[in-house]
Amino acid sequence: MPYRAPVSEIQFLLEHVIDFAGIAATDRFAEATPDTVAAILGEAGRLCDEVLAPLQRVGDIERARLENGVVRTPTGYGDGYRAVAEGGWIGIAADPEHGGMGLPLTLASGVNDMMAGACLSLQLGPLMSQGAIEALSHHAAPELQALYLPRLVSGEWCGTMNLTEPQAGSDVGALRTRAEPADDGTYRITGEKIYITWADNDFTENVCHLVLARLPDAAPGSKGISLFLVPKRLPDADGRPGAANALRVVSLEHKLGLHGSPTAVMAYEGATSWLVGPPHGGLAAMFTMMNNARLGVGLQGIGVAEAALQLALGHASERRQGRAGGEGTIIEHADVRRMLAQMKAETFAARAIALDCARAIDMETATGAPEWSARAALLTPVAKAFGTDTGFDVASTGVQVHGGMGFIEETGAAQYLRDVRVTSIYEGTNGIQAMDLVGRKLADGGAAMLALIDEVAEAARGAELSELAAPVAQAAEALRGATEALVAAPPEARFAGAVPYLRAVARVLGGHYHLRAARSGVPARVKLARFYVARLLPEHAALLAGIGDADAVLDLAPEELRA
Amino acid sequence: MPYRAPVSEIQFLLEHVIDFAGIAATDRFAEATPDTVAAILGEAGRLCDEVLAPLQRVGDIERARLENGVVRTPTGYGDGYRAVAEGGWIGIAADPEHGGMGLPLTLASGVNDMMAGACLSLQLGPLMSQGAIEALSHHAAPELQALYLPRLVSGEWCGTMNLTEPQAGSDVGALRTRAEPADDGTYRITGEKIYITWADNDFTENVCHLVLARLPDAAPGSKGISLFLVPKRLPDADGRPGAANALRVVSLEHKLGLHGSPTAVMAYEGATSWLVGPPHGGLAAMFTMMNNARLGVGLQGIGVAEAALQLALGHASERRQGRAGGEGTIIEHADVRRMLAQMKAETFAARAIALDCARAIDMETATGAPEWSARAALLTPVAKAFGTDTGFDVASTGVQVHGGMGFIEETGAAQYLRDVRVTSIYEGTNGIQAMDLVGRKLADGGAAMLALIDEVAEAARGAELSELAAPVAQAAEALRGATEALVAAPPEARFAGAVPYLRAVARVLGGHYHLRAARSGVPARVKLARFYVARLLPEHAALLAGIGDADAVLDLAPEELRA
Repeated sequence: MPYRAPVSEIQFLLEHVIDFAGIAATDRFAEATPDTVAAILGEAGRLCDEVLAPLQRVGDIERARLENGVVRTPTGYGDGYRAVAEGGWIGIAADPEHGGMGLPLTLASGVNDMMAGACLSLQLGPLMSQGAIEALSHHAAPELQALYLPRLVSGEWCGTMNLTEPQAGSDVGALRTRAEPADDGTYRITGEKIYITWADNDFTENVCHLVLARLPDAAPGSKGISLFLVPKRLPDADGRPGAANALRVVSLEHKLGLHGSPTAVMAYEGATSWLVGPPHGGLAAMFTMMNNARLGVGLQGIGVAEAALQLALGHASERRQGRAGGEGTIIEHADVRRMLAQMKAETFAARAIALDCARAIDMETATGAPEWSARAALLTPVAKAFGTDTGFDVASTGVQVHGGMGFIEETGAAQYLRDVRVTSIYEGTNGIQAMDLVGRKLADGGAAMLALIDEVAEAARGAELSELAAPVAQAAEALRGATEALVAAPPEARFAGAVPYLRAVARVLGGHYHLRAARSGVPARVKLARFYVARLLPEHAALLAGIGDADAVLDLAPEELRA
Repeated sequence: MPYRAPVSEIQFLLEHVIDFAGIAATDRFAEATPDTVAAILGEAGRLCDEVLAPLQRVGDIERARLENGVVRTPTGYGDGYRAVAEGGWIGIAADPEHGGMGLPLTLASGVNDMMAGACLSLQLGPLMSQGAIEALSHHAAPELQALYLPRLVSGEWCGTMNLTEPQAGSDVGALRTRAEPADDGTYRITGEKIYITWADNDFTENVCHLVLARLPDAAPGSKGISLFLVPKRLPDADGRPGAANALRVVSLEHKLGLHGSPTAVMAYEGATSWLVGPPHGGLAAMFTMMNNARLGVGLQGIGVAEAALQLALGHASERRQGRAGGEGTIIEHADVRRMLAQMKAETFAARAIALDCARAIDMETATGAPEWSARAALLTPVAKAFGTDTGFDVASTGVQVHGGMGFIEETGAAQYLRDVRVTSIYEGTNGIQAMDLVGRKLADGGAAMLALIDEVAEAARGAELSELAAPVAQAAEALRGATEALVAAPPEARFAGAVPYLRAVARVLGGHYHLRAARSGVPARVKLARFYVARLLPEHAALLAGIGDADAVLDLAPEELRA
């Protein structure tokens, strides 16, 4: 049972759950007709099935290697990457002025979801390029854009993000990498960066590093960081990659998963670079890059969840075992069905949240309306954290469905678990996402969140499928109460409840989207929504009950935890 | 921060949470005085810290290997095993008649917990021997016992369990391995067995395989299986290992974790064997072996949870990062404290359940009273499933506390996650445990469960710490209602709610034991109990709400799941 990209599932979501028609009705995205959507998803899906999915095991076994300072990628990764680039899938949402397709991010997100499910370690490379494209599009000078964007969009060159340093992880303000101005308007970058994803490869002719560093007169903390573009090879007058820049890959990490993707320690030794955005404006540029990447990482979790679900469904449908004298397959067992239903219901909920987040970004792009901007900002941490937590939970349940075989690497179920685990950590840990949600994203007094809750409650009104709608409406009201209480609470108390609150938000939204899916009238959708409402939605009450007592966390002193 | 065996934590549990004094008050276990307990735990703890813990990484990296048909174990495993054997830790609960210490299983469980936390892949070997000792002690003929038990108890020889075959996993009744009677009272075993843990090694002079097989006249299904003892080398007249038996290790599996432990495919090619127990009585013997092993596997999860907690606490206490200009450590962050508190509260709850299960087995042994037998049977699946789920959840949270470092293998957090994952699968998947709980263990009309609920409710009465006790009492009543409903439900409906029901039972019991710990008066215990009651106990309501609607699972047809 090889992986099959979930083309029809994503089409169903765009049609019945996410108001994609509303995106296509804007001038900006008028080209995103149903025919275009079907063509894009169908074409990308074929690439996933035929080219990317076969690389999944290869990358895990061969691993990216560093040989004499040069990164070697697994067999077939170069061809796989080129197929992604040549299909135009890196620049699907990028500006046509620089060679992109200019299509909605919602559609690009569907494609990223499918590619991540096919081969996460490879897809991670193009995702980094998409982040770089986003940052340069918003913040770089026109000359830099003209030189770099077409090459990044086409995939001839690729992009990376260099944020973390040994002493500066979640707290980027602690970084020490220095940028010294040169006479010619460029800057010399010196410092060490760690956890650099796809820091190098053996298939693109250049690698464009976006590096956070401090100018000599920089303030301490996060206000004093600036963003720089540091190419591996310096472009010559014709824009061809020329002399090697003063940077190198020091080593690659031995990781739990994503073996096919090189994660490097990078040394910058007076490397030539160009400032992106204003001096000391690095944080804003970084957030542009990271917000895009956060949604993208959420979709990675969802893609892996989809792949793990397919593998488990295939196994459960073929594995003969059990009471009927070995004649039945294990999918007939109630508990196996429970596991599969949970995997499917969670994957659906997480995907709907992520695609609705992408929709908000598209509507913001198309209309410039601040309410879309607020909605996008609100949903991004939820899409990232719930998407990746779901990826891990579903992958783990997938291992369980396989029984003993799940622990054997050849089965492939364990690789999904290993690969996806980091998605809850990188691009801001899920704890950071939750703090962003209860901090910055409720800083409007909860207005954006309460508007979303209103929408959920409104949609749950009415007689249609009221046995499903009523619990969703109740859950929305519980969330409203908890949100109001959280807005009134001091910061430390908010943070003590941040992670359970984010999960409760996802639980309520999951109910909302399942209800929409059920209203499509497709019987299997109604049953899956019923499963979600009966088995998963109630968790919101337990989560919200808990966060009322912040002191249950805050009163525990470090010494008491260590006792 | 190297692993330190949790000697004082286990002593606290025995003193304040588990009524170990009640065990020591029986004639059978009169030797288990407080001094003996302290000496045993202290001595075993030193072994864990000094000998076993240093092998954890070595085994993961070097892996067990098969070279020309011979299993080679990682450097130091032979010495580590011999230290366990020479300390008497394999036979701590075994009959003194065969060289055991005859101490309570509760104490042996504390030792197993500590050894599992130090080096799970090595500890797994002695755990298999303990299962074999248990099975032979209850079911083997006296001559077999006299020959094999002293050597298994001393660790000169080791034991394995051979249940699974390619077509017979959770459904052992489907096994096909044949046993042909020979003229001399022995049997010739022919067949293939898979997932054989510690099937061979390079440090014991013999390996005693307990193999399930079918006699020629066997009925189909699980009623037709018998248990056989199949030594790797046939003992000579003096009981020394002589000629090689007709069996071999075919291959070793490539596993997600436990790399130091060889997991083999075994071929039996007319191997000489001895019947253990009556013909066609294999199932009963298997359950003796497995029940012991199930509790032992639950303790493996708990041991790993402990180790993962210690590693995370060490990291969080040392890693400088954050708002205070990099001067504070991350343990000061509310969400990091929340994660650590959850890891600690869950580990405590799981450990208390497992040790209370062991206590019930000891009281059964000491008194023969059927109520202890029922309590032990009831708690075994809960101890196994909740202990191992907790091991995995805590290990995963431990990875999260480490941030990016958690994904790097050298950190060690990821290994705990990989190693512990199989504990939810082997010795009966956690789904099987849950079905055992709602099936066999409620077949008494719920009497044993309701008696336990009475005890929980009774202990939660009274004014002392009533803010913690009242929610526990309420939860117990909710569990009572759900139990009564489940007892009245048809089997399929029970099975559809089995896993959430088991977890709800564990949630309520966790509250019960945390309350006992809090009543010790130690402030940190009171705060941890408050955390548990506020943040984790409420989950029981969500779980129990869900299982009322069995059809939410059962109505989902396989085609609808695949749709």
